[in-house]
Amino acid sequence: MRIGIIGSGQLGWMLIMEGSKFGHDFAVLDTYPGPAGRLLNFFYKPEEYREFVDSCDIVTYEFENGDMRAMLESEKQGKLFPGLLPVRLKKSRIEEKEFLRKNGIPVAEFVSAGSFSEAMDKSGKFAKSVIKTSSGGYDGKGQITRKREDPPPTGGEDTEYIIEEFVDFRYEASVIIARGRDGQTRAFPPSRNRHLHGMLLSTEAPCEDDGMTEIATLLAEKLDYTGVMGVEFFVTNDGPVVNEFAPRVHNSGHNTLSGHHVSQFEQHIRAITGMPLGNTVNLQCTGIVNIIGNSLTGTQVSGILQIPGTKLYDYGKEPRKRRKIGHVNVTGEDKEVLSGRIKDVMKIVYGGQEEETLRP
Amino acid sequence: MRIGIIGSGQLGWMLIMEGSKFGHDFAVLDTYPGPAGRLLNFFYKPEEYREFVDSCDIVTYEFENGDMRAMLESEKQGKLFPGLLPVRLKKSRIEEKEFLRKNGIPVAEFVSAGSFSEAMDKSGKFAKSVIKTSSGGYDGKGQITRKREDPPPTGGEDTEYIIEEFVDFRYEASVIIARGRDGQTRAFPPSRNRHLHGMLLSTEAPCEDDGMTEIATLLAEKLDYTGVMGVEFFVTNDGPVVNEFAPRVHNSGHNTLSGHHVSQFEQHIRAITGMPLGNTVNLQCTGIVNIIGNSLTGTQVSGILQIPGTKLYDYGKEPRKRRKIGHVNVTGEDKEVLSGRIKDVMKIVYGGQEEETLRP
Repeated sequence: MRIGIIGSGQLGWMLIMEGSKFGHDFAVLDTYPGPAGRLLNFFYKPEEYREFVDSCDIVTYEFENGDMRAMLESEKQGKLFPGLLPVRLKKSRIEEKEFLRKNGIPVAEFVSAGSFSEAMDKSGKFAKSVIKTSSGGYDGKGQITRKREDPPPTGGEDTEYIIEEFVDFRYEASVIIARGRDGQTRAFPPSRNRHLHGMLLSTEAPCEDDGMTEIATLLAEKLDYTGVMGVEFFVTNDGPVVNEFAPRVHNSGHNTLSGHHVSQFEQHIRAITGMPLGNTVNLQCTGIVNIIGNSLTGTQVSGILQIPGTKLYDYGKEPRKRRKIGHVNVTGEDKEVLSGRIKDVMKIVYGGQEEETLRP
Repeated sequence: MRIGIIGSGQLGWMLIMEGSKFGHDFAVLDTYPGPAGRLLNFFYKPEEYREFVDSCDIVTYEFENGDMRAMLESEKQGKLFPGLLPVRLKKSRIEEKEFLRKNGIPVAEFVSAGSFSEAMDKSGKFAKSVIKTSSGGYDGKGQITRKREDPPPTGGEDTEYIIEEFVDFRYEASVIIARGRDGQTRAFPPSRNRHLHGMLLSTEAPCEDDGMTEIATLLAEKLDYTGVMGVEFFVTNDGPVVNEFAPRVHNSGHNTLSGHHVSQFEQHIRAITGMPLGNTVNLQCTGIVNIIGNSLTGTQVSGILQIPGTKLYDYGKEPRKRRKIGHVNVTGEDKEVLSGRIKDVMKIVYGGQEEETLRP
């Protein structure tokens, strides 16, 4: 079978690395052959989208903002998994949140606004609020957090905004869930995520579930989803609320490449090709340290691999401020061992400078 | 770093699949881009061996009978790991066995002969013997087993022979061991192997060690080895004796792709690039069922993946009588669960016809 991937980043790279064991061929469409280009069978430029789709038996995407013509053509030919609905929802934060609320998924209170000044007016509804443009922005870029009593900032764009009640969370978490073509679902145990300046810095799994798997399952069903999806949560004293979902393999699920029977990448390939899903139980506690900004020296790599239970994934990307260029997977017999090793890896990667390194 | 692999078979394919996580590029030299060609960065034909070696930082081989000019050139440039000594020893069964015996590795009694008739004469030394040509032959091809009282067969080639005392073994087993550039060794727990008509059919690990790891470690040191090596044993009532070694990742070690912290493939890449070796402990019991002769139907694949703990590796090769075209990895919480699942997989793959399917 030939599987097309829209997008040539590290997620595509790991999909190929993990999916080629089934004997599939892979084709990638993107403007340039990025990390996935290192394991490439067939590469197509955006203008070759029709040839790309024609040549593939099924098509998936590693990024929901990938080439839209390729997505539409794939959908038209009945080849696109997980389909267009999640892509459309992800184009508008308002539509995404409305879909979630309508389907009984717990989300923060929110309202929408047609302009920046309207957004400022409406943010008075909440004691503390987070204001974002409805579309665009990434890794927390352009978000405003405002208390009711703060003077409204000026500026802003002439576009739609979403105003959400600020969620006073205990921690952030995520669930990686797969749904097969037959509707069967399997979720990996939830992971607890540490963000810094809007970027995922590290992850530890499993963490307390607290209903998150049930919510993720409901969402996968309501989306009539096929494939792997990441669902991000704020965990509050009153339980989890969904922050957002990503209709693809997810940054916070790379730990499944270690200490698990199948990774999220293999699981996605199984799901979209109609194969039975793999067991998602943790064989060990697992975690991730993302490598952001600076590449590692040989001494750092060697130091990391001397810590028991570590594995390195180097995306082969040029280092750049706030760019994820790799990650370290870490396993441990229990949570304490895992946490200790993650701290050790953090020390080698960031030397205590993570705050500085990730600051925009 | 660019790593060259001499040989484009499934072992090369899995080396790339498992080694690319470190961000390395891979180049392959062979007569045609086989299984490894599906994940290829750079491919070289045998006549381009010099360009191939020049372009690589280090070179390894997935098959000890790979292109000799490429091996010699790599050695000359100081790039070849695990080096030429094991390749040379593997060219002559007599030299291999002499090296083993000289270095205190337990092997069956043996003598050599310069012709077939001399071999027949000398086989009278043993009550029962196995007679093989010193070079060539694979998967048990061309072996003669003879009792002293049997009339000597006629025919045979005008070449060197080795005559070994027949080993009355309880079972066959193997150890996959890695030795780093710094001399550190790490062995995976031994696996018990089931052969049929000279071909490996299935494997279960771990099995009782009985001194095998110690022997494999001694051999790796005596060879001053760098990389992963497979050591095959006959386990007798008086302990293990070495049948042969393979200076590369090994058919019986594919189980390490499941239920282990690192696979033999990742371990080989770590070893030859001078990185710290990974932990080799079994997280679960693991095994292999080789797919030989016939390709699987979609229904078979689906049936196999419905058995818990299974993973499929499809080498993408044309099926052919007695050709390995893939394998199924199987994991289980304990030996009984593993054995039961291996039986279930065998039933789906061979339907009880393995004897028939593997017969030459």
